[in-house]
Amino acid sequence: MSDLLPQLASLVGERHVVSGETLRDRPQDFWNNVPTPARALVKPGTTSEVSAVLALCNGNGIAVIPEGGRTNLSQATRSDERSILLSLERLDDIETPDEAGLTVVVGAGVVIQTLQERCAASGLRFGLDFGARGSAMIGGALSTNAGGFQALRYGVTRDMVLGLECVLADGTVLSHLIPFRKDNTGYDLKQLFIGSEGTLGVITRATLRLHPAPVTRNTALLSFADFTAVARTLSRLRRDLRGTLSSFEIMWPEFFDFNVEALYGERRPIGSGASFYCLCEAEGFEPDSDGALFEDVISAALGAGDVADAVIAQSSRQRDELWKIREDFEAEQNFFNVMIDFDISLPLKVMDKFVAEVDAALKSEIPASLGLHVLGHLGDGNLHVTTGLPTPEHASSLKDLVYGLIARYQGSISAEHGIGILKRDYLHHSRSPAEIETMRTLKRALDPRNTLNPGKVI
Amino acid sequence: MSDLLPQLASLVGERHVVSGETLRDRPQDFWNNVPTPARALVKPGTTSEVSAVLALCNGNGIAVIPEGGRTNLSQATRSDERSILLSLERLDDIETPDEAGLTVVVGAGVVIQTLQERCAASGLRFGLDFGARGSAMIGGALSTNAGGFQALRYGVTRDMVLGLECVLADGTVLSHLIPFRKDNTGYDLKQLFIGSEGTLGVITRATLRLHPAPVTRNTALLSFADFTAVARTLSRLRRDLRGTLSSFEIMWPEFFDFNVEALYGERRPIGSGASFYCLCEAEGFEPDSDGALFEDVISAALGAGDVADAVIAQSSRQRDELWKIREDFEAEQNFFNVMIDFDISLPLKVMDKFVAEVDAALKSEIPASLGLHVLGHLGDGNLHVTTGLPTPEHASSLKDLVYGLIARYQGSISAEHGIGILKRDYLHHSRSPAEIETMRTLKRALDPRNTLNPGKVI
Repeated sequence: MSDLLPQLASLVGERHVVSGETLRDRPQDFWNNVPTPARALVKPGTTSEVSAVLALCNGNGIAVIPEGGRTNLSQATRSDERSILLSLERLDDIETPDEAGLTVVVGAGVVIQTLQERCAASGLRFGLDFGARGSAMIGGALSTNAGGFQALRYGVTRDMVLGLECVLADGTVLSHLIPFRKDNTGYDLKQLFIGSEGTLGVITRATLRLHPAPVTRNTALLSFADFTAVARTLSRLRRDLRGTLSSFEIMWPEFFDFNVEALYGERRPIGSGASFYCLCEAEGFEPDSDGALFEDVISAALGAGDVADAVIAQSSRQRDELWKIREDFEAEQNFFNVMIDFDISLPLKVMDKFVAEVDAALKSEIPASLGLHVLGHLGDGNLHVTTGLPTPEHASSLKDLVYGLIARYQGSISAEHGIGILKRDYLHHSRSPAEIETMRTLKRALDPRNTLNPGKVI
Repeated sequence: MSDLLPQLASLVGERHVVSGETLRDRPQDFWNNVPTPARALVKPGTTSEVSAVLALCNGNGIAVIPEGGRTNLSQATRSDERSILLSLERLDDIETPDEAGLTVVVGAGVVIQTLQERCAASGLRFGLDFGARGSAMIGGALSTNAGGFQALRYGVTRDMVLGLECVLADGTVLSHLIPFRKDNTGYDLKQLFIGSEGTLGVITRATLRLHPAPVTRNTALLSFADFTAVARTLSRLRRDLRGTLSSFEIMWPEFFDFNVEALYGERRPIGSGASFYCLCEAEGFEPDSDGALFEDVISAALGAGDVADAVIAQSSRQRDELWKIREDFEAEQNFFNVMIDFDISLPLKVMDKFVAEVDAALKSEIPASLGLHVLGHLGDGNLHVTTGLPTPEHASSLKDLVYGLIARYQGSISAEHGIGILKRDYLHHSRSPAEIETMRTLKRALDPRNTLNPGKVI
């Protein structure tokens, strides 16, 4: 189809079609600084334009790869020379939030942090937060069902969606932007498009749930001698902090000590030698009493012998320093020459045993492996496990080893990053042949010409 | 297929196949005391047996109607002479709840109240509660995505599901009984089966989320002069009761006065003449302070002038009396000769106007209509609107009138009761032709022979 580019230009405007050298000069994504291969990058400005672009490409057998902030961790927005990249970045409007109904309608191209700030200005909280907040877009978060730091309180992205508008491969627009929570009018179609990584439809717009914005914030770093004490403390905080617990991030000591050393050297924020460290944060509505309640609950956990040591942040600077231990991965990225990371969910009761077994197996079976960094969102059963190798040699056997153990512990091989290309060949470790075949059936039914993000997920 | 019954008996055991007069003597469901038409009622005891029954029926072109507690409000379990009824009642096991992980694995045949009580015995709360708790089963609640009294705190049934096992029309078993919240391993298949009323698969088992069981319970009946004061008070209670608000049930005065008169005559629990009455309940974890907090927050709402009058239940007997006003529909059922009810969701900001418009339209266009009873779960945007007629004449124009208004206000024609047969012809008031066609595409893909609950939903 030689006149594809002019046709695309006629649909979205010439300046919204990028091709040739300009496109090749753009890195494929945040993680892969390689030229972007694609016939063109198309930036529609409305849902109708998205629909027209899809109808054109679908009719001509041209693959379409939707993209947002391009910080996906599973290569879900990778394109090739024959495909069209479809950026949702121009669908970036935020309607006025409904303060009584606690909802907001947004376009897929809205950056997470922009929405967070817009909501905060109205005394509201959009409950999704993760490291890439400054670049990741709502459409990408919806397509990957992103999780993050506050899922234990506000849920994952799926839990925040009331209504959705999306476009099928053939250009059909499905719009159901309801602002209420209860709706049983036939099949809940939106669920198919949330988390399916752009393979079933292109999300253009959503009605999202909001929450009243808390006005207090209390943060502590806790250390523990054993895992059961960590789990008991999570239960205690969930209960005694009266619903204000918003984060409970666990770090195994190998990662914690590594990052503390890298960031602060000798200036450790808490004593060494513990078996686990947890960063916990509560956000509430009572300026007069939340701080005292937080201290009381932490004191009770210390008194009960569950918490070995505790540091409560006394300033926002100290809070930022504590969060940096959890959020800053620069030293880690430099340390692990060939970095290999796993984003997994596990039943709480086997988590500690699983990590010990991975550690032992790596040491005995992949002697070249460079340590094991484990951290995660304990309240969601979600761990991030990172290791590395001096060279790519053994990478494949290392992955087989860890994915095999995840399967044996009945865990999920992708908690919040999705499958994309990187994990496609491992999907069978978490899903049965019957489930994968059912996914293929759905893909064939909704996208019979395999137009949308082909080769991703399944 | 003349030897169907012996074949079914060979799959599930002879005593688990009911047919002939025994079956006909059984009422079709709780609401329709008519004989049950079907070739047989089959009661498999395991997921494998469900699979075998479905494979047999699907292979022979025989429709299968799944049923649970048979209290469905949209005739979603109606059978006919040619179909097989598939009861899940024998899949009634409850695994030991995981107190640390806050999960439980249950069979589809578990009665809601049985699960509530089993969880309560372990200090846990299963957050689903509605009137039919004593008969409705988990499988039915999942298939209809049931809502109920505590959705504002715990969500609807969909929000309580972590993992699901179900069987496709051809007998394929899809099992993904994960006990954690974060899982992005391909398409979230369970969402297709939740709320699709048995038309896409038969749910056999689920992993459900639990919560710590509250230990305090405080209940109040509030009256209001206007709707904005009701909405403001809901926001206030959500915020100031520190996450303990579990119910906020609104009643318009025509229903409230009617039911108070029917239940208690002159002994009114609260002064008359208000524009709205709300039953609110908080359940918390602090026996020493929750009662005082509840009184303080209600007092503040009175002091602010939003609440006109308030009665706080002083005993469990008084609490039950207050709840009875909301839950007891016996007098209403006797009063409305031909009862016509609507289960709808609406944006909060148009709710009051909608009700006023329905009231005026009924009075002017359907003069035979016998009043308008409105109540609902305000926190979920969900109203139950009931009216009646002396005879079935005008029933169809009354429905057209109300559904037309729901569509005009962009509401949902089914908030929590589903579509079944009763609302199938009205589905287009809430869903577009493109959405309904996409539902049909999914139905054809997963159940190409139209074996599962044919004629329901779409």
